[in-house]
Amino acid sequence: MKVLVLGAGQLARMMSLAGAPLNISISAYDVNSDSIVHPLTQQPLGKGLDKAIADADVVTAEFEHIPLPILAQCQQSGKFLPGETAIKAGGDRRLEKQLLDDAAVRSAAYHIVNNETDFEQAIRKLGLPLVFKSALAGYDGKGQWRLKRAEDAAALWQQLDAFLQADSKQSIVAEQFIPFQREVSLIGARRANGDVQVFPLTENHHVNGVLSVSLAAAGNEQLQQQAQQMFTAVANQLNYIGVLAIEFFDVNGELLVNEIAPRVHNSGHWTQQGADVCQFEQHLRAVCNLPLGSAALVRPSLMVNILGEESVPEAILDIPGLHLHWYGKTKRAGRKMGHINLSGATTAELKARFETLISLLPETAFPELALMAARLK
Amino acid sequence: MKVLVLGAGQLARMMSLAGAPLNISISAYDVNSDSIVHPLTQQPLGKGLDKAIADADVVTAEFEHIPLPILAQCQQSGKFLPGETAIKAGGDRRLEKQLLDDAAVRSAAYHIVNNETDFEQAIRKLGLPLVFKSALAGYDGKGQWRLKRAEDAAALWQQLDAFLQADSKQSIVAEQFIPFQREVSLIGARRANGDVQVFPLTENHHVNGVLSVSLAAAGNEQLQQQAQQMFTAVANQLNYIGVLAIEFFDVNGELLVNEIAPRVHNSGHWTQQGADVCQFEQHLRAVCNLPLGSAALVRPSLMVNILGEESVPEAILDIPGLHLHWYGKTKRAGRKMGHINLSGATTAELKARFETLISLLPETAFPELALMAARLK
Repeated sequence: MKVLVLGAGQLARMMSLAGAPLNISISAYDVNSDSIVHPLTQQPLGKGLDKAIADADVVTAEFEHIPLPILAQCQQSGKFLPGETAIKAGGDRRLEKQLLDDAAVRSAAYHIVNNETDFEQAIRKLGLPLVFKSALAGYDGKGQWRLKRAEDAAALWQQLDAFLQADSKQSIVAEQFIPFQREVSLIGARRANGDVQVFPLTENHHVNGVLSVSLAAAGNEQLQQQAQQMFTAVANQLNYIGVLAIEFFDVNGELLVNEIAPRVHNSGHWTQQGADVCQFEQHLRAVCNLPLGSAALVRPSLMVNILGEESVPEAILDIPGLHLHWYGKTKRAGRKMGHINLSGATTAELKARFETLISLLPETAFPELALMAARLK
Repeated sequence: MKVLVLGAGQLARMMSLAGAPLNISISAYDVNSDSIVHPLTQQPLGKGLDKAIADADVVTAEFEHIPLPILAQCQQSGKFLPGETAIKAGGDRRLEKQLLDDAAVRSAAYHIVNNETDFEQAIRKLGLPLVFKSALAGYDGKGQWRLKRAEDAAALWQQLDAFLQADSKQSIVAEQFIPFQREVSLIGARRANGDVQVFPLTENHHVNGVLSVSLAAAGNEQLQQQAQQMFTAVANQLNYIGVLAIEFFDVNGELLVNEIAPRVHNSGHWTQQGADVCQFEQHLRAVCNLPLGSAALVRPSLMVNILGEESVPEAILDIPGLHLHWYGKTKRAGRKMGHINLSGATTAELKARFETLISLLPETAFPELALMAARLK
C-alpha cells in the first residue's frame, strides 16, 4: 500500500517507521515547500502533489492546519481519510464545537465572538472567568486569552478586536472556564466497518501550554468507559476512519471535551513501547482498511517531550525500559525535537525509573517532571 | 551518528528502522551491485564504498560472507565493528572451531578435511555418524553431508573430493554427529567497556535446514546461565563489539555450540516485540558505544518466518499481540520475505494465540508449526 501524508514532520516520520514492516510505504507532502518528500530521509521524491495523490492508495494527514484548496483537492480524489470534514473540525473551533453539540458530547459552554456585541453577550451568557480561543490555527496554548474580572473586559476587547481585524477568516470562541483537576486524553481508532479500539486514558501535564509529560498507567475503569463512550459518539458522528485524539478536562470524575485532533497525537507517543500496537501502526491499519490491532496496555508507560534540546545525557539510556525517539530536526527554542518513552512492569517500577530519569535530566530543560512522578502511585 | 552496514538486506533494513529514533542514520553497501543504498528505500545514495566508509562513524555488517578485500578495507578504516576477525570467524568454520577451542567453549569434536587422508582420519578419530560441513559460505543447511554407515564412505568421498576440487579456497569440517534434543540460540551484545547483555534463550525449529519458528518463553535458568557463560567467553575472546548470536545444541541439558553469527540473527527477531530493547537497537547501541539496553523478556514471544510468500491472510492481523514484518523483497521460492512476531501476557495466552495463527495460515507454506505450539506449556 502507498500512503500520502499531508505534512512531513515527526508524525509522518513515525508513521513511516511503523508502516514499513506492514509493507506500507509513506510519502509526505511538505506544505511549506510544496514538495513531496520521504518523511524519514526528507529526500524530495521528484513529483508534485497531483502526481503524489494519483500514485497513492490512501491520503491522510498529520496535522489539521492545511490550506483549504489542498483539502478540497485531496477530498476530490476519493482517497482522503479521515477526510475534509474531520480535518476541518480539528482546525476550526467553531466546527469542533458544532460537532460536539451534534454528537451530544459534553464540552465547555461557549459563544462565538465576531464583534463587540458577541463579546458582551458571551460575558453575560457564560459568566466569568472566561477563556477566549482563536477559531483557527491555535495550538500549544497559542491564540488564547483569559478574562477573570469584569473590569479587564474593555482592555481585552481591544486585543481581541485587533486580532479579528487582522484576519477576516478568524473568529473567537469564548468558553466558560473549566476548573478541572487534570487533563486526560483518549487516543483511539475507527475503521470503515465501524470497529473501534481505544488506548487507555492518558494523563497529560503541560508547561506553558505545551505538552510535557503523558502518563498511561493502571486505569480508572469508570473514567475509561466515559471517555470511550464520548470517543465513539464523536467518531461515529464523523463516520471517522483513522486515529482520532480527544483531550478532556477531568472535573471531579466527569469528563468534558477540551478539543479533538483528527490524527495521531503527541499524547499517544507512549504507545510505541507501552501498547500492543502503537498509534502510528493503528492509524495506518485503519486508513488502509486492515483489522485494527489490540490497543491494550502492555505495561505502565509514560512519555516526556524533548523541547528545544538536541541532546540528552547519554546515561539515561542505562535506564531499563527507556527509549529515545529523535525526530531529526534542527534545534530551535521550544521546538519538539524528540521524546523519551519509559515503561515498567508495574507502576512502582515505572515510578522508580522515572525518578532516576528526572535525576539525570537538567531541570531547566525538563521542568515540573517531579509533579508527574508524584501522580504515579 | 552515521553507520554503514555491509549488506543491504532485511537485517540492514531493520537496523535502519531501529536506528532512526536514536538519530542513527544507516546506509548500506549492496555487495552484489557494489553500490551504497538507503536500506529502507533501496535508493542509491550516489556514492561509492570509499566515500561511504569515509563518511561513516562506524562500519558494521549484516552478514559474514563478505569478499576479503572489502573486509580488509573496512578494517583498515579503524571503524569496523565487530571487525574483520569476528566476521571471518563467522564465515569460515575452520576459524570458528579454532575460536571455540581458544575460548574453551564446548562444541562437537571435529577434524578438518582437505584430502582423502584427512577424510579417513576423521572417520577413525571421530567415529560415525559424522556431519561434513563446507568451511565457507554454508548456511541454512546448504553445504552439508552426512555419513552414517562405513560402507557409504567411498561414495561420499567422491562428492566431497569434487566439492574441494571445484574451489581451492574451500575446505570441509567433519564433526561428530550430536544427538541433540533441540536447538537453542542466545543473542547478546557486548560493548567496548566489556558490558554484556544477553536476551533469553530462544528455542528454534528448522524445516529443511531453514529457520521456521523461534520461541522465547519462560526460561530454564540453569541453561540460560550456561549459555551466558559460553557467550561471554566467546565474546571476550574476540574482544567483540556488537550483537553476536550463538546457536547451540541442547543435549540433555548440556549445551554445545553449533555455530556463531557475528551479527543480528533471524532467531532474535522476536525481540522487536518481546524484549525491552530489540536486537537491532542493541547492536547499534553497542557499535555506537552507547549504554546497552535491558535485554529482559517483556512477555513470552515467538517468531514465524515467512518463506517464499508475498502475502498472508489479512485476518491474522486480528490476533492480539501479532506484528507483521515484511522486508519489501521480490518473491522467490523459499526466500525470507518477512516474519510474524506474536506475543502474549503469559505462555498460555501465547499458545492460544499461536493456535489461532496456525489455523489461519496455509499449512503448505507454514509447515510443522503445530510441533512448536506443542512446546508451549
